[in-house]
Formats: sequence, structure tokens, C-alpha cells
Amino acid sequence: MLAPTTGRGLSRAGRLAAAIGLALLTLMTVDGVYAAAAVAINAALALCLAAMIAEWSYRVWVAIRVRRASVYAASFAGIADAAGALAVPIAFAVGVGAQAAWLCAVVWVLKLVPGISGLRQLRRVMVLESASLISVAVIFLTVLFVASVAEFALEHEAQPAAFSSLPATFWWAVTTLTTTGYGDVVPVTPLGRVVGALVMISGLGVFGLWTGILATGFAAETRRENFLKTWEAVSRVPFFAALGPSAIAGVTNMLRTIDLPPRVTIIKKGQPGDCMYFIASGEVEVDLPGKKVRLGPGAFFGEMALLGNNVRSANITTTTISRLLILDLVDFRVLMARHPDLAATIDAEARRRAAENS
Amino acid sequence: MLAPTTGRGLSRAGRLAAAIGLALLTLMTVDGVYAAAAVAINAALALCLAAMIAEWSYRVWVAIRVRRASVYAASFAGIADAAGALAVPIAFAVGVGAQAAWLCAVVWVLKLVPGISGLRQLRRVMVLESASLISVAVIFLTVLFVASVAEFALEHEAQPAAFSSLPATFWWAVTTLTTTGYGDVVPVTPLGRVVGALVMISGLGVFGLWTGILATGFAAETRRENFLKTWEAVSRVPFFAALGPSAIAGVTNMLRTIDLPPRVTIIKKGQPGDCMYFIASGEVEVDLPGKKVRLGPGAFFGEMALLGNNVRSANITTTTISRLLILDLVDFRVLMARHPDLAATIDAEARRRAAENS
Amino acid sequence: MLAPTTGRGLSRAGRLAAAIGLALLTLMTVDGVYAAAAVAINAALALCLAAMIAEWSYRVWVAIRVRRASVYAASFAGIADAAGALAVPIAFAVGVGAQAAWLCAVVWVLKLVPGISGLRQLRRVMVLESASLISVAVIFLTVLFVASVAEFALEHEAQPAAFSSLPATFWWAVTTLTTTGYGDVVPVTPLGRVVGALVMISGLGVFGLWTGILATGFAAETRRENFLKTWEAVSRVPFFAALGPSAIAGVTNMLRTIDLPPRVTIIKKGQPGDCMYFIASGEVEVDLPGKKVRLGPGAFFGEMALLGNNVRSANITTTTISRLLILDLVDFRVLMARHPDLAATIDAEARRRAAENS
Amino acid sequence: MLAPTTGRGLSRAGRLAAAIGLALLTLMTVDGVYAAAAVAINAALALCLAAMIAEWSYRVWVAIRVRRASVYAASFAGIADAAGALAVPIAFAVGVGAQAAWLCAVVWVLKLVPGISGLRQLRRVMVLESASLISVAVIFLTVLFVASVAEFALEHEAQPAAFSSLPATFWWAVTTLTTTGYGDVVPVTPLGRVVGALVMISGLGVFGLWTGILATGFAAETRRENFLKTWEAVSRVPFFAALGPSAIAGVTNMLRTIDLPPRVTIIKKGQPGDCMYFIASGEVEVDLPGKKVRLGPGAFFGEMALLGNNVRSANITTTTISRLLILDLVDFRVLMARHPDLAATIDAEARRRAAENS
Repeated sequence: MLAPTTGRGLSRAGRLAAAIGLALLTLMTVDGVYAAAAVAINAALALCLAAMIAEWSYRVWVAIRVRRASVYAASFAGIADAAGALAVPIAFAVGVGAQAAWLCAVVWVLKLVPGISGLRQLRRVMVLESASLISVAVIFLTVLFVASVAEFALEHEAQPAAFSSLPATFWWAVTTLTTTGYGDVVPVTPLGRVVGALVMISGLGVFGLWTGILATGFAAETRRENFLKTWEAVSRVPFFAALGPSAIAGVTNMLRTIDLPPRVTIIKKGQPGDCMYFIASGEVEVDLPGKKVRLGPGAFFGEMALLGNNVRSANITTTTISRLLILDLVDFRVLMARHPDLAATIDAEARRRAAENS
Repeated sequence: MLAPTTGRGLSRAGRLAAAIGLALLTLMTVDGVYAAAAVAINAALALCLAAMIAEWSYRVWVAIRVRRASVYAASFAGIADAAGALAVPIAFAVGVGAQAAWLCAVVWVLKLVPGISGLRQLRRVMVLESASLISVAVIFLTVLFVASVAEFALEHEAQPAAFSSLPATFWWAVTTLTTTGYGDVVPVTPLGRVVGALVMISGLGVFGLWTGILATGFAAETRRENFLKTWEAVSRVPFFAALGPSAIAGVTNMLRTIDLPPRVTIIKKGQPGDCMYFIASGEVEVDLPGKKVRLGPGAFFGEMALLGNNVRSANITTTTISRLLILDLVDFRVLMARHPDLAATIDAEARRRAAENS
Repeated sequence: MLAPTTGRGLSRAGRLAAAIGLALLTLMTVDGVYAAAAVAINAALALCLAAMIAEWSYRVWVAIRVRRASVYAASFAGIADAAGALAVPIAFAVGVGAQAAWLCAVVWVLKLVPGISGLRQLRRVMVLESASLISVAVIFLTVLFVASVAEFALEHEAQPAAFSSLPATFWWAVTTLTTTGYGDVVPVTPLGRVVGALVMISGLGVFGLWTGILATGFAAETRRENFLKTWEAVSRVPFFAALGPSAIAGVTNMLRTIDLPPRVTIIKKGQPGDCMYFIASGEVEVDLPGKKVRLGPGAFFGEMALLGNNVRSANITTTTISRLLILDLVDFRVLMARHPDLAATIDAEARRRAAENS
Repeated sequence: MLAPTTGRGLSRAGRLAAAIGLALLTLMTVDGVYAAAAVAINAALALCLAAMIAEWSYRVWVAIRVRRASVYAASFAGIADAAGALAVPIAFAVGVGAQAAWLCAVVWVLKLVPGISGLRQLRRVMVLESASLISVAVIFLTVLFVASVAEFALEHEAQPAAFSSLPATFWWAVTTLTTTGYGDVVPVTPLGRVVGALVMISGLGVFGLWTGILATGFAAETRRENFLKTWEAVSRVPFFAALGPSAIAGVTNMLRTIDLPPRVTIIKKGQPGDCMYFIASGEVEVDLPGKKVRLGPGAFFGEMALLGNNVRSANITTTTISRLLILDLVDFRVLMARHPDLAATIDAEARRRAAENS
């Protein structure tokens, strides 16, 4: 926990400055706009940079005070902060032109990205599937090299400008193997076209492998994340406590977790219903005719639409930040079939509620 | 249930008008055709618009009469109807040219689309997988931005026209990252080409993630839809009633539902057979030599081809709209192995039928 | 069984004629080659056509003789034969030019294609997944239409030649949505490029759905085909007869079937081994030091490499057309763990063999 | 085991020579660089070739000495060595130009590739899925041929240069079907564009099938490889010996194997932990306050972070080359639920360790 309470607001301000700075950077390169407002854009960019430097200085100071300077400096956030604060000044110091120096502000993108949890997943997938991905990269590079040599031998004489050297032919090969196909360099000899066709078809194959590996890995990772998050929540719902630990693992695979802010309508009266909900934390309000009932952690709702008629009978809204577990109709039926005792509990509660409200 | 009986015919007429209108819209932009038949096309388009307005007015009137005006106005159909009726008149009122005004009739496409059930599935997949899809979009945008800045820095001097500003470079980057590769903007410097090659390869990776997430989600959703539809039907077949509820969940995963119109030949005599059928609702006619036998809901047929010889022994045709459950040979064998009692029932019935017909 | 014994040779001759004919057709369009050998190519093409007509006449005659003319005429082979025989003569009769008439010989490709079993699978996948595929097609067409209208409105004035009408813009849209990107029609206005970028990204999404649906369907279909083929073979191996029918379904999923011609070496002495084999039909010869042992249907071999040392101890070759069942090391271990009696049988046999050969 | 101890160093030297040679080959084709340093490049290439020849000669000599010359000559390494040594000399002997002769050195890539284990997997996938892949190739070729004939008929008159013959049209078709879309040959007639659009859409379909088949096959193969590797290791950990063989197959599917060099920090104090480790071979050092504890084969560690608090309590480092089995938090919970005795063992050990260190 690096940041004290002020750190969080600072962090948000830093992100805002980074986003504004990147937008200004884009505007700066448009000649017409820059000609019209050069001073304003330069001033605003300088302000953004000042914000970066201020944030970094503050964080370094805090880190030194709590004696974690080396941890902070080696962390992703620390590197991003340092790069954001130093890249442009260093570029100016080195003496490159003003525009080129400001372009170094592209490193501010680092401050915007790490907030996305999906990137952590992607990194895990990359690590776990690294053996397969390296194999595909080797195939890619081998095809690239062999095809380039063949095409160079076949096309160099016919098109000495386009296929001037092997590195120039690599450009053709990578354009073709990824099926991008700019069309700036195109084989014209019959044999050169046969090689080109083989490269395109290999491209499909390489692409297929790549897609398959990433897709399989990402799917497994998503399942894993969901399981971890749901397991936490399931263990807090007393309804499932009666199940043995082995059955809980099965139930966890059936549930999905969602986090909702306050005042979100989860269920609308009169709509078709195909799932029920368990409250892991938070609270919801059921809008019954003439009264409002509140349900807290451990309670469930929405089960009536799964037990016969398919239409929701009341509006249900969150009153606070809530974590809910969703059980789909499909899985509801499988679960009730496997655990008749749970079915009885739900049935009894549904009947009690129906009696109360009629 | 918004629409009275006349509402359905109206709905069909509205769709027809939309389809004709969109075809006319296309013709209108072809100079030769329009020059030859401007009056006819304009008149027909006006008629289509009149139909849209008429349908919308009628629906609003009905909705007000049944006091559901706000529900209708907020529904997808209500929005589509309103947009279809109002877009072109508003465009004319605002004072844009005639052709531009008629182009607004593209919103009529909304009246054609919502009939497809697959779109509901797609929306569900989008919602469920939103976290992953957003991660991929963030990766896409980050690569796009960083690559554009790098390419702008590397190519701006060599090609000031093509890489004139960062927004212009975004166009190159998106063309390359999606592997579309128009070839209108192409890097020429060696380092620019290296960046270009990295962008293409990243494009394959981003594409692979995207494909994988959508594909996995869509497959799960299709399975879920099929389960819901089949569960309904299975529970109406007495043959499966003997199974416990847990086994029924298993059986449901083995069966596929199909809905057939009357007078469709399900089984042709003499053809090889690799599945058997259960009738969930409707009726079929078995064309035996010398007599015709009718089978109603709950009956099964086609089992003989799975019990020894592989050739169908009679034509079987639907007599009315029917919902059938299909059990594949593979699953038939697994099911019979797991539930010997079902195997016995089918065996007995098959022997009875064979005896009767010999 | 349409064809008598001579029918098979005829069928092969017909295919050969079709293949040669298509090659000649290709040569015919190459000006230099045709100028040099017009007479020879024309004569050879006429011969191929004569072969088509002869085959079709013979088959019609046979079909009439066995009173199955209508069945033959409606079958795929019948249609292919008729089209192959009639397309070119009809084209000549209608009076089109000689080259155009011969191009109609492209229907001969129908005679080459149906021999591939994978196409039957593809047709099944198309039928089973038709609902999803239609949804994707609808999304594709909707995006195509809406994007074309938007791009036409945005680009028509800037590029009246390229975006001359909506149909012309459809060409741009389909080129972009499939990420082909010829580059012959490219948006140039800023807003037009934003629409273009959205179309490209939608293209990735549509493509992802399409890929996912086809891939999932094809995988399921392949598994199903393999199960059917293997089930047949497993039931003929006495070794598995001791298992109950339910366990056989499990075993079937572990095995793969291969069909081998005579004199193929299945196992090479000294190579690492990671699977064992069961003979469903046919015969193999084990090349032991000093003697040759033959194993017939129901026997198994290759188990020793799985029970300790990993190196094959003898050459094993087929003596006749054989169907073998392959059990991978992974599945071998799982199977032995689940069925200790099978493990004991294999162990005993392996020990007997080792004793015999030492 | 062909190579004696010196063989390994030789092999590494051979690879290095191949890599340097290929880089020189690339440089050689760049006019500017070659003009400046022709003598140096030629000399270095000749040295690389000499190294190839030396390595091959040595290996042949060794193979003859141990009487395995025919095995070596037929092996992949043997062929690669022979090709690497002979290709360039033969090209010079045949009398092609110097540059063309040196381009034959592209075969040196064979010496770099076979070290990648992923290629073996790819070959297995190709063999196992060959039936499906051939089906897709047939569909690809059929669409290619039929579309080319149609496009030739439609576009030959409008663009006699671009669509000059069927082979020239094949080039257009393969460029379009793979969605590469160079744009050098583009249909201009309305019907020709409709055919072009259909080819692009077919391209997506063919691509989807191809991707799906390769992806499914590769995923299965990766699982299989991992299972084999892990099974070996699991059977060496006494902790799992208590489980029956059937349960071990289940556990194997939960574990992943990693091989680590010495002095790698596996666990960092203070970091969040979501997996535990079993030592299959090698040794690790736990850096406890005041003392260092070493754990050998069969021991486990990292379990405390899974039993309550989520933060690692000590640094753990390998002391030698070690093979570890990783058990994820998800699978840890499932495993503990299924096997309460394992849970008890881990719990007891964790409590003992906690008592010892407090």
C-alpha cells in the first residue's frame, strides 16, 4: 500500500493529465490546428508535463519516507511515473527538435494502461503458453526467411527495384505472410507467384495456430479468474454451506459473479426471467405491492421465475454496492436435480413468499 | 402482447415496405437507372415512407388505447418504427438535399433485423464477455497509438504527404493492424518497415484473442439455448419420465430439437439411418406396405435402423407442424449403455413393430 | 450399389478424363501455348468430352436396366455425370464462342470432388449450425449496407468516380469488411476514414464469429465420425468384450482407428514408442530374432514399450489391408488405472511374450 | 546417442556458424554493404561453409566407426548436415552465378530449426488431422478453380492484360481467397465484382475451418505432451503415492511441470501467492529469518499462502537444476475437497512449519 489517502486523488489527476496530454500531442501534429493555437497547445502540454513531474516527485518522496524507495522504483507504476516525468525533459536536453521531443510523451500511455485487469490475464497466458507461441514464431520466421530467399532469387532480375535485396524482400514476405497485402511490392514472374501463393496459404496456417493457442489459453485463464472470484463469494452464502466441499467446487463452476453499484435495477417486473440470484455481499430492495422488503447477504431472489411461470413478479434494486452470484436456468435445473435438498429449501422459501404476498 | 390480430399482417407489410424501400434507395444512387426512372423511383419511395408512417401511427394509437404508450415508445420495435417514420421527413424539414434526405431511410434496416434470434445471442455474448472484449480493445488502441507515434516520427520526413499528422497515421495503423492493407499509405524507410511488420504481427495476435473470445462465448451460448429448448420438449416425452431428474439433464445434452412444417419427409425408405426420433409435439405418418400408421406426441421412430441393419424400412412424413427430438447413433449407444431399462423398452417396441409388419 | 464391376473402372477413367480435361482447359486460355498447339488441345478436349458422354450413356443404360433411372438421375453422381456430358454441347448449341463453350467444362470439377469424405462432414456442419451461420450472415449484410450508405454519403462528393453509387460502394464495403483491402477504392475524407476503420474492426468481429462457429461445429463432427468408426472396430476386439457396454463407450473415445495397406511398417525396432495397437481386422507380422510371428484380428501389440522401457523391440509390418486401433500412452495409463483386470491381462501377455523371446 | 562428448560442442558451433552464415547471406544481397565489404563477407561465408563441411565429415566418420552410417544418413540431422555441407559446393560446380550459389546456403536454416520441440507437435497434428486438412485443401482448390474460370469469363474482355489467361486468374483468386488483396489485379465489371465478393466471403469460411482444425488439434497435442511430462514427475512424489492410480491420472491433469536452472527465486516474500509447489527433482532453499532450510525431492512448499493469508512469508530459491510441479489455487481447492487425507497431510505440515518458525 504505497499511496496514502491523497495518493489516490493524485493518481486520478495523473491519469487525467496523461489522457489530456496524449490528445494534445495528437492535435500538435495537425498542421492547421497547430498553426492556429501553437501557444495554447504548448502551454497545456507543459502543464501536463509539470503534473507528471509533480506526481512522480511526490511519490518518490513518500516512498523514501516509508523506506520503500527501491520497491517503488522497480515496480511497474514507478517505472511508468519516472518515464512520464523524464522522457520529454531528457529529449529536450539531448537536443532533438521540439516536436520530436514532445513525441516522447507517448510513454504517458503507460499511466493509462495498467488499470486494466485483462492485461494481467494476457501476461499469464503469454507465460503459460510461451513454449507453443515460440514454436509458432519459429515457424513464422523460418517461412519468412526461406520464402524471402526463394522470392529474391526468382524476382530480383525482373524487378531489381522492388526486390533489391534480402531485407527488402523480407518486407514483401511479412506483408504477405500476415495477409496484409499492401500491394506495393508484388511478384510478377510465374514461379514468383507460385511462391507468393504458398506464402499466403502458410500465412493462414500460421495465423490459425496463433489464434488457436491464444484463444485456448485466454479461455482457460478467464475460467480460472472467474472460479477464484466466485469461490470466495460462494463460501459466504450459508445456503451452500450444507453442500460438501467437493460439491461446492461443482457449484462454483455454475455461478457467475457480478458487482453492482447502488440503485441498479436487477429485475424488472413483467420481464421474462431465466436466472436466479444469491447475495454474496450488499443488499437489495424488493418492491412488493404496498411494502418494500430488503434482503441482505446470504439471501436469494428471482427463483420464482424459474419454478413455473417465466415472468418476474416485482422490481428488485440494489441499495448499496453489492456482489451477486447468478445461477442460470440451465444450471439451476442441473443443480436442483443433483441436490434435492437444495431444491426443497428453495421450494419452501418460494411457497412462503408466495403465501405472504397473496 | 401489443398487436391485435391485424397487427401481425401490418408488421409483415411494414417489413416488405422496408425491404422494397432499401432496394429503391440503392437503385436511386445509380445515375443511369435514376435518370431513366426518377419519377417512378421517387413515387415508390414516397409510398414506402407513407407505409412506415401509417404503421407507426396505427401502433401508437393502439398503444395509447391499451395504455402502454410508454412501454411501446421505449421498446426496440417502437424506436425502430418511430425512426423509420420520422427520419426522412425530419431530414427534408432540416433542408438537406433530396438524395441526402432519402439516404436517411437507411434506418429502415432496423425493421428487418430484430426478427433474427441469433442477434439476441450475440448481445448476451457481448455482455457476458465484456471484460475480456474491453481488454482486447484497450490492447488494440494502445498498439494503435504507440505504433502511430513511432511511425509518424520515422516516416513524416520521408513522406510528408502520406504521414502528414498523427490522425493521418492512425488511418495507416488501423489499416495495417486489421491486416486490411489498402496500400494507399505504406512506410518506405527501413525502420518504418520494421515498425510496420511489428504492427502486422500484433494485428494477428489481437485478432486471435478477439476471435477466441467471441468464438468461445458464442459456442457456450448456443449450447445453453439448445439446452433450454430441448429440456421443455424432453419433459413432455413419457419415455424419459422413468429417468430421474439428474439423468434427464444428461439426456437433454444428447438430444437436438427440430421444428418441422407439415408434409416433410423425415425418413426416406432405403436410405442409411444414423439417428432416431422422439415426437415432442405434432404427428407423423409411417408409410408401411398396405397401411398407414400415425404416431403422436411421446412416440418414437427410426430406432430399427440403429438396432442392427442400417437401412430405413419405411417413409415417414409429418402431417402437422411437429417438434422432434433427434438422438444420434453415437449418443443412442451411450444412452442405451447407461440405461439398460430404456434399451429394453426400445427393443421390445422394435420387436413388436417388426412382428406386426412381417 | 449402382455400378457393376465394370462401373468402377469406368468411374476411375471418368475422373482421369475430368482431371486431364481441366488441365487442358487451363492451358487453352494461355495464348502462347494455345497458338502453338491449338489442334492438339482441341482434339484432347474433344476426347475428354467423348469420355464423359460415354460414361454418362453407359450409366443411364445400366440405371434403366436395373429400373433405378429416377434414383440415379436425382443422385449427386447422376447430376454430375449429366452436367459433365451436356454442359459443353449445350453451350455450343446455344451459339456462344468456342472458348466460352469450353469454359463450361468447369462442371467436370464435380466429378472429382465428391470422393472426399470431408465434404459430407462440411454439409452436416452447415445444416446443424445453420441458425448461427444465418445470424452471422445477417450481421454481415447489415453492417455492409449501413456502412455503404454512410460511406456513400461521406465520400460521394470527394470521389464521385470511386463512390459513384451505392452498388459501387458495396464493392468497397465487402473488400474492407473481409479485410481483403485491394486499395482500388479508398476513403479519403476524415469521417469516411473513421467509418472505414469501424468497418475493418467489425470485419474482425464478424470473422471471429464465423470462424468460431465453423470450428466448433467441425470439431464436434470429426469426433462423431471417429466415434462411429471406432465403435464398430472396438466391438470386434474380444479383449474389450469383458467391459460392460458403458465402459466400451468410454474406451471408444480413447481409441483412434487407422486403415493401413499391406507391407507398411507400423513399428520400427529401436524407436521410442508411445502407443499400443489392437488389430480390428487384417494381420501383422512381428519380426522376432530367428522367427516371424503373425498376429490376427483381436490381438494386440506394442504394449511392451508402455510397460517400462520406452524402446520398440521388434519390427512389425502389415501383411494385408488392416484396420488398427491406436491407444496412446496417456489413455493407456488412464485405462489401466480404471480397469485393473485389463491391466492384468496385458501384463500377463507381455510377460508370456518376453519369456518366449528370451 | 550418436554424438560423443565432443559432438555436443561441435553441434553448438555448427548452429552458430549457420546463424552467422544466414546473417551474412542477408548482408550480401544489400548492394551498398556488399560493395563496401565484399572480400570480408565472402571470406566469412567461406569459413561458415568450411565449418559445415567439417562438422558433417566428423559426424559421418563417427557414424561409420559406430556402424550406424545408414541410420545417421536417413535421420533429419544427417540430411540437414549433408545439405548444409553440399548445397553450395554443388551449386558452384553446376556453374550458376556466385550470388545464386550462395543463396543455396538457405538450407542452413535446417540446422537451426530442429531444436524446437513445438515442430514435432506440429508434425503430429498434421498427421492426426490430415483427413480434415485435406478436405479443406480440396475445398480451397475447388473454390479457387471454379472462381477463376468464372472470373476469367467475366473479366477477360474488360481487362485482357490483367486476366490474360486462367493461370493469371489463379493468381487473382489465391490473392483474394486468402484475403491478402494486393490490388494489382482487381475485377471491374459488376458481375466480376459479385464473384469477387463471394470469393472473399468463401475465403473467410475456408480460413475459419483451417484455423479451427489446427487450433483444436494443437490444443489436444499440448495437453497430451504436458500429461506425459507431468505423469513422470508425479509418480516420483511420495505425497501422491497414497492416491490410487485412477486418482493420479486426475491429479496429473491439475499439475503443470516447470524446469528451473539454479539460483532462480521461485517465491518472493511479501508477494501475493496463488499456487503451491512440489519438488519432483532438484532442491530449493527457504530463506527463513535466522536460518536457511533446504527441501529436496518429494517435499512441497508455498502451501501456507493457500491456507488463509495470501502473502508469501519467505524467499524460496533453487539451488540446483530442479523440476517443480505447480498446483494452482483453483485446483488446490478442488483437490483438497476430493481427497481430505491430502488436505490433512498438508494442514499438519503447514502447522508444524508455522510452530517451528514462530
